Amino acid sequence: MFTLVGLGLGDASDITLKGMNAVKEADIVYLEAYTSFLINSNAEELSSAYDRPVVVADREMVESGVVLDDAKEKKVVLLVVGDVFGATTHSDLIVRCHEQGIECKAIHNASIINAVGCCGLQLYRFGQVISLCFWTETWRPDSWYDRLKSNRVAGIHTLVLLDIKVKEISDENLARGRKIYEAPRYMTIKQALEQLLEVESYKKEGAIAVDGSTFAVGVARVGSATQKIVAGSMKELLDADFGEPLHSLVIAGDVHECEQEHVNLFRLPQQ
Amino acid sequence: MFTLVGLGLGDASDITLKGMNAVKEADIVYLEAYTSFLINSNAEELSSAYDRPVVVADREMVESGVVLDDAKEKKVVLLVVGDVFGATTHSDLIVRCHEQGIECKAIHNASIINAVGCCGLQLYRFGQVISLCFWTETWRPDSWYDRLKSNRVAGIHTLVLLDIKVKEISDENLARGRKIYEAPRYMTIKQALEQLLEVESYKKEGAIAVDGSTFAVGVARVGSATQKIVAGSMKELLDADFGEPLHSLVIAGDVHECEQEHVNLFRLPQQ
Repeated sequence: MFTLVGLGLGDASDITLKGMNAVKEADIVYLEAYTSFLINSNAEELSSAYDRPVVVADREMVESGVVLDDAKEKKVVLLVVGDVFGATTHSDLIVRCHEQGIECKAIHNASIINAVGCCGLQLYRFGQVISLCFWTETWRPDSWYDRLKSNRVAGIHTLVLLDIKVKEISDENLARGRKIYEAPRYMTIKQALEQLLEVESYKKEGAIAVDGSTFAVGVARVGSATQKIVAGSMKELLDADFGEPLHSLVIAGDVHECEQEHVNLFRLPQQ
Repeated sequence: MFTLVGLGLGDASDITLKGMNAVKEADIVYLEAYTSFLINSNAEELSSAYDRPVVVADREMVESGVVLDDAKEKKVVLLVVGDVFGATTHSDLIVRCHEQGIECKAIHNASIINAVGCCGLQLYRFGQVISLCFWTETWRPDSWYDRLKSNRVAGIHTLVLLDIKVKEISDENLARGRKIYEAPRYMTIKQALEQLLEVESYKKEGAIAVDGSTFAVGVARVGSATQKIVAGSMKELLDADFGEPLHSLVIAGDVHECEQEHVNLFRLPQQ
């Protein structure tokens, strides 16, 4: 039996009772630790909170399917930050279970996709999500631009997910065959705003205002005790201090009356 | 202190440990019981599972803000099916808390908005959600059509949320001032498919194929032990038996290779 258990967004106590039961009954508990990370808990803390050994499953272990090795005879749980179907790799595990005749199930939880409703903009007025990557000297993807533009033209909001780099190997180390991992990096709201404005500055199709006057909401550490939400123009948000990761960003479309009052709670004081 | 606690989608055990702690510490626990309902638990069952009295808060109590009456001096919890920001009325409660100087917080959980990832189509490839209402003789809204069309043209998926009618009063009883509630009604996937096809038949703009050949996925009771997922053409799904509520529907856009294998697990056997 293979069970994907969503951990939600904050800390060890954001697991559901159903998820906790699956952990208690499991023979092996893995933590998927490369598509996201839990704001206030690492594997050791989860292990102590759940009173069970928790094994970190890195990218190789998940993508190669090693986490399924014992699932035919034993109860294996894979803990996933947020909800269980946030990344294609988890869908892939479900498919492998079916191919290998392993019984599998999913225990859901909150993810940024729905928890972003805390920013005051209504979920049913969001369009397609976009994801920003850290640019390198030679790779500066901007294919998200058309989706952002399409949402903005339709007057709807865009959730912008920001890059996470965990257990990456530098080009130099890769070339030399050295398995040395770089320090984890998490894109900040400021970096995201700069990238968005830079792409607008050369695309010039008006997805957002190039002077930074488009209304946006930055959200940091959603679901944790230190959650921070700030609403304002993109330009204003460039100067806001959101603190530790994880950060996400919403580029607003038209803000309806029923959203206005809620989102206004997070506005920067007007000078 | 006012705390909105998401219950998730299945039963009493889908609450998070954090949510459970809020319930245990609360002086008053309400259950919001009109924007959705928990598939396998009513207020009595929640009350017994949580070992606390749970008071059903109907539409009037929530929209009038009665649930906040004691929140200045006491700890009040409002349990909400799914996540806490699925309905504008919950945003409104947060705004009222700020106006009245009541401390408030939200404890997130899964909702259909993110849990629908279980159907095998990737969440980052969904466009704006649409909602279908039960039609009456005089009120047949179809304003969702343009949004569906826009998603389909962009090749992305559309989550279709289906109407729930709880504690409705018939026009006749309303006219006579009788507070007699109709039996609850939940739109089925079949009813939704029929409405979608009917609107296409007179709009004729090709949002979906009028012959019912557009690919779709029906999901019922997501997150519960009796969850059912069936993928096929809209025409095929018309004949599928999804059983008890709640039902939701996904009208697929282009299905990418990485989605194909997962969604194929739910395909009807080809004749």
